[in-house]
Amino acid sequence: MQTMEKVEEMRAICLGLRQAGKAIGLVPTMGAYHEGHLSLIRESRKRDEVVIVSLFVNPIQFGPSEDYRGYPRDLEGDKAKASSLGVDYLFVPSPEAFYPKGFSTYVLVEGLSDKLCGASRPGHFRGVTTVVAKLFHLTMPNRAYFGQKDAQQAMIIGRMVADLNWDIELVILPIVREADELAMSSRNAYLSGQERQEAAVLFRALRWAEEAIRKGDREAQRIREGMSRMIASMPTARIDYVALVDAESLEGIEKVEGKVLLALAVRFGEARLIDNLVVTV
Amino acid sequence: MQTMEKVEEMRAICLGLRQAGKAIGLVPTMGAYHEGHLSLIRESRKRDEVVIVSLFVNPIQFGPSEDYRGYPRDLEGDKAKASSLGVDYLFVPSPEAFYPKGFSTYVLVEGLSDKLCGASRPGHFRGVTTVVAKLFHLTMPNRAYFGQKDAQQAMIIGRMVADLNWDIELVILPIVREADELAMSSRNAYLSGQERQEAAVLFRALRWAEEAIRKGDREAQRIREGMSRMIASMPTARIDYVALVDAESLEGIEKVEGKVLLALAVRFGEARLIDNLVVTV
Repeated sequence: MQTMEKVEEMRAICLGLRQAGKAIGLVPTMGAYHEGHLSLIRESRKRDEVVIVSLFVNPIQFGPSEDYRGYPRDLEGDKAKASSLGVDYLFVPSPEAFYPKGFSTYVLVEGLSDKLCGASRPGHFRGVTTVVAKLFHLTMPNRAYFGQKDAQQAMIIGRMVADLNWDIELVILPIVREADELAMSSRNAYLSGQERQEAAVLFRALRWAEEAIRKGDREAQRIREGMSRMIASMPTARIDYVALVDAESLEGIEKVEGKVLLALAVRFGEARLIDNLVVTV
Repeated sequence: MQTMEKVEEMRAICLGLRQAGKAIGLVPTMGAYHEGHLSLIRESRKRDEVVIVSLFVNPIQFGPSEDYRGYPRDLEGDKAKASSLGVDYLFVPSPEAFYPKGFSTYVLVEGLSDKLCGASRPGHFRGVTTVVAKLFHLTMPNRAYFGQKDAQQAMIIGRMVADLNWDIELVILPIVREADELAMSSRNAYLSGQERQEAAVLFRALRWAEEAIRKGDREAQRIREGMSRMIASMPTARIDYVALVDAESLEGIEKVEGKVLLALAVRFGEARLIDNLVVTV
């Protein structure tokens, strides 16, 4: 595995690979690898001739009061994991080289970016679509891999790729969970023992809602209230949102029908955790 | 020359060309060809293996009260001109296919897009950068050609290409002028006889300013006022802006120094005309 720090060197290598007709897989990450990341890398290793993993804690997707500085970083551990999975290139640019002085171009998906996490994190998804656009141009992938854990992000990137006519196949892989079914997240590292234990309520609430729908409940508000009560019963939990939305438009719904995204964001101490489940009726 | 109307067919052809290692030149246009357009096409024909000209009156770069519907269109004339210059593919998508239902992704260059023409045409440059981004992804050019007539547009696209790490060489070609030095523009077709005659004042004003600077005047305000007086002396002229700005940042200047862009936008009847000149002291 080669670790690439220079933007222009990474670009030159990718140009050469594309000209040689190699199929490139890109796994964009912010590092602090857990099994969720590794599942994306493994899938790319299976499907693509060349696997490029970008590791970049992207400053422009964090709000001023968010955890950019404290975001978990473990470069040496990440390198070892990526290397052991057969990654060809680990791209680790510096923020200064990635966003040079005078940088002022942004890619924005309107509508979808304002809902759910976008409502509590203004500018977040603009930062995500912009970094992904830059990584797509630099690495010229045939396929790019994202996790269903960030369901809204995956939808927004899908919209961007379609709207801007990119010739890139997106592969969205399932959420990987801990033994107690807490969704894996780099931010789980922020949790105290008690918070960690209580956070398992998130997936219990999602499964309870799924079961309620399976049994015939179609009242979104009642289901949402049931989930919120379960979560709020945990002393360290502070709900950001608990939502039932149309899985295409992310618009809130009243009646459960068609493909519905159950999504939530909840703070436990310093950690803002998200999770989701798609239900089709 | 092949005329391509279907977005997916155009994309498939370009993918094939890129995979075959062909160097593609893209000339994005809105049609109604004059010598300015043709100079771009000729240059691409000289330099590139495959010449693709897009002809698309881009609805999202027009404001609601602007001339989208009335913009000059001459598809048959344009086809004949493009074909005679050896264009390989003329890409003429429909607005409905280019911006399908649900389209909601935009590329925006902040700062530069708000000044000069951006101040009088809110959203204009967002429409330009978005259509160009889509055309770049669809046609995958090695080079793209734009005219210095739209100086601000050329700068904004340059910024976008650099910021988003596109591997595309931009070629900016000089303004082509009529015998009386009016800059060629598709919108000159809107001018009445009197308006057409009076519009020649624009370049006279630019040249007068250049001469004043050459003789040692460094007071931007005095030069601007001199130009404005010359233009305002024409009965059919209504000034939108007359500006001396830093040629990199487009910020207004007080003293003329370094590389300065003299730029103006003036209405004559239905036509809003622009022109510019770069002066280095």
